[in-house]
This record gives sequence, C-alpha cells and structure tokens, in this order.
Amino acid sequence: MYDMMSGIGAHEVIIETPDHNRKLRDAEFDEIELMLRAYQERTQDLFQDPRLRYILVFKNVGDQAGASLYHPHSQLIATPVTPKKVQEELKGAKKYWEQKERCVYCDIIRQEMDAGLRIVDENEAFVSFCPYASRFPFEMWILPKRHSPDFCKIRAEEIPPLARALRTVMRKLGSSLGNPQFNYILHTGPARFARTGYWQTIDEDYHWHIEIIPRLTKIAGFEWGTSFYINPTPPEEAAAYMAEREYTREREA
Amino acid sequence: MYDMMSGIGAHEVIIETPDHNRKLRDAEFDEIELMLRAYQERTQDLFQDPRLRYILVFKNVGDQAGASLYHPHSQLIATPVTPKKVQEELKGAKKYWEQKERCVYCDIIRQEMDAGLRIVDENEAFVSFCPYASRFPFEMWILPKRHSPDFCKIRAEEIPPLARALRTVMRKLGSSLGNPQFNYILHTGPARFARTGYWQTIDEDYHWHIEIIPRLTKIAGFEWGTSFYINPTPPEEAAAYMAEREYTREREA
Repeated sequence: MYDMMSGIGAHEVIIETPDHNRKLRDAEFDEIELMLRAYQERTQDLFQDPRLRYILVFKNVGDQAGASLYHPHSQLIATPVTPKKVQEELKGAKKYWEQKERCVYCDIIRQEMDAGLRIVDENEAFVSFCPYASRFPFEMWILPKRHSPDFCKIRAEEIPPLARALRTVMRKLGSSLGNPQFNYILHTGPARFARTGYWQTIDEDYHWHIEIIPRLTKIAGFEWGTSFYINPTPPEEAAAYMAEREYTREREA
Repeated sequence: MYDMMSGIGAHEVIIETPDHNRKLRDAEFDEIELMLRAYQERTQDLFQDPRLRYILVFKNVGDQAGASLYHPHSQLIATPVTPKKVQEELKGAKKYWEQKERCVYCDIIRQEMDAGLRIVDENEAFVSFCPYASRFPFEMWILPKRHSPDFCKIRAEEIPPLARALRTVMRKLGSSLGNPQFNYILHTGPARFARTGYWQTIDEDYHWHIEIIPRLTKIAGFEWGTSFYINPTPPEEAAAYMAEREYTREREA
C-alpha cells in the first residue's frame, strides 16, 4: 500500500518535421521513417538505464486529444514502473497463451485476414484493421506480421512498410472523417527482469503494435465508472466506410 | 476468453427538475432530496431482478463531460456483470482490509479529518474533500461517516445531510471555477452472491461514496497508454482555493 516510487523518468518530444502545418498524412515516407527510427533509437538508448521499466511512445493530435503543441510531434515518456494498463495487457496476453499456447495477437492477425471484414490496409510486413472489439468508432490497430514483443527490435527492412502502413491509415482516417483529432499509442514490451509472473513469457505471448484512437466520442460517467465503452460504430462499418471513401476519391482523381 | 454476456440491463434517465436551465448548485434542498430518493428507490427496485449485478448512477454535465441532453438529469445503468473498474475498487478495498482489518475509506475519513488540509465540507453525516491522490484537478469525494457498503441502504435521516453536502460541493466548485463541466459517479456495492473472492467481505471492507470529476484537463495518449494520471493541481491547493473564493464571496455579499 505504501510502496515508494523513485522519482526517475524521462519525457522527450520528437519533432517530426520543420513544417509547422504539415500533417502526418502528408509526410514523405522518408520523414516518417526517420520519425520511427527516432522512436527506436531513443527507446534503445533509454533502456540502457536499468531504473527505467517502461517507455511509452505516443502522439496527441488536436486539443480534444490533449495536444498542447500544434507543431507535428510525438512524445516519449519513460517510467520507473510498468504502467497499470500495460500490465493488464501483458497479463491478458499471458492468460491467452496459457490456454492456447499461441500468441493472441498472431491469432488476431490470422482471424482478421481470414474474415477480411475489418481490414484497412495490408502490406508485406504489417496489417491494419478496426479491431473486432473496438472501444471507439474508427479505432484502428497496426500489427507486425512477424511475431515480436518489442518495437525497439524492429528490423531495418520493416521500417519502410511500417511508414507506408501508418501513412495509409492516417490518410484513410483523415479523408473519411475530415482529419479528426486522435491519439496513437505504441504498445510494446517493458524492460525485462528475472522475475515471476508476466515477465517470464513476454517473448512468446506478447506482440508489439500501434493503437490509433480517433477522438469522435466523449468519455462520460458510464465509461469512468465502469471501464466499459459504448461504441456506436461497428468496426465492419468503419472499415467499409473508409474503403468506400477511398474508392470514391480514387475515381474522382 | 469467450464467456457469453447476457443481453440484459436497464438504462434510466432521472429528470431532476422541471426547470430546463436550473443547475444542481441552485436547486432547493427538497429537490435534491427527491433526486437522491429516486436514486435509492430505482436501485432497490432493479436489484430485485437477480440478473442485474451492478447499478451505476452518474451525472454528466456539459458536452466535454459527455452530456447529450442539456436539461438537468442523472442516469442509471444496470449491468449483468460487475464492471471492471468496480471490481478493481472492491479488490483494492479487500486487500487493505486483509492487511489492516479496517475499512480503507473509514481510515481515509479519519486521516483527512485529522489533516484538515483537503476538507471541502463537513456536516453531521458526510465529509467532502479533495482526495490525497487526486487524479484530476479539483477532484472531490463525498463519504458517509457511517460505514456502509451500499448507497441503497442509506437511512432516511441521512438524505438531508447528503443533499446539503452535494449542494455545498457543487456551489464551491461552480463559484471557484465558473461552473466547469463535470461528471459525478456514485460508487456503491454490487448485488451480493454467495461466491468466493471480493463478494464475501464487502460488508466490512467497502464503503459507498460519490466521486466528482471536473473536466478541466484532457485525457491524452499518456493517460490512455498507462492508466496513470497527470494532475497539475495538488488537492491541498484546490481545497484552499475553494475555501478562499467562498470566503471572498461571503465578505463581498
């Protein structure tokens, strides 16, 4: 109850471009690749400090999404504990693995590609889709096809397809819904220690990914009181809407 | 992983007044008492249905707080499961009780009244304060002095002091910060079943209360990714600011 938490951490702002008004959807691929490499290099560097247990990379766009700077930027916050929400996700992945002896995210990729209904984009290394149990309208996840728990171990040849996946998703979201405000969050493994519990099996059961949360609805009393979510837009409709808008745009071009 | 959840529930809207523009801070005490009795009576009635496991009473004020109706109202949502966030709170209370053999909320009341620094209001039956670990600026909790896990078992003589506590808190918040948007959520025990786990000890370890969350800051990527909160206003400063503003207002009156 009264554990002390050491006052250690880091907060970095990653400036994505010199252009004050350029959105991520309009970036050149090499700019996005540089941004992703900055995420990777800063994470690798900070993980050399054994006091840091987790490194969260995220992006807030728009004042409703909590952005306090307009210039295109991402953020990185390193914490001396594994955050509550990350622990919950790791424990959930471990529980699934104990039942199935398979990574839940690898299973989700197979299921989404078989179903096809919620896919937003696919390339040689990444799949993007509106998840089956979307909490928010037009929520999207980008998953690497190669099983890997840690974003910071992404291979050099996986950076260009991730840049393409990210820009495609940003363009589909932006052109369908008029550039809505959003957050995206990189979900990745924590620093490893020889401990019991969910740390032991992360290499097998966890799978890094990016979650994109458009801020179209408000969090109200019901969500605060329950941690349940009310989502009025089924993910199949969101994916179909984005595909149709893109098709219309291509035909008009 | 694949539990089915039955499609059972209830959603009720409690209209607080015929006056479309009247805020809760401006209500007469007897109106607030009627509202609180409606919370109690509807909860008692719905709990007769054994399929309902939890009844959440809450209020959203302002579009940022998720309100979709302007007319003063509260809401009640009954669910066929105990919500995730409620389970977490119940488990936390149980864990404290296992260590101390005391209710954590009774201990918080004692500690807050001893410290005095974060108290916003006190009457014969209720204490209102900005909690020590406030997640949000000007967050406030109203706790009954009498240990009781269930709001729906509130005694008739406790309704008038709760109405006074609620109006005082609403007035202090409203006059200090210019009627900010907010949510409040009634935290109370779930339906009881003869089960293992946190259900067994709720009578001893849980304590109903109201949590008031002013919507002054935004939930951004860091909060979504961690379930941690960044609060720029210490609770002592929030309580002092509300006390000072009230003192100034009384002197000017």
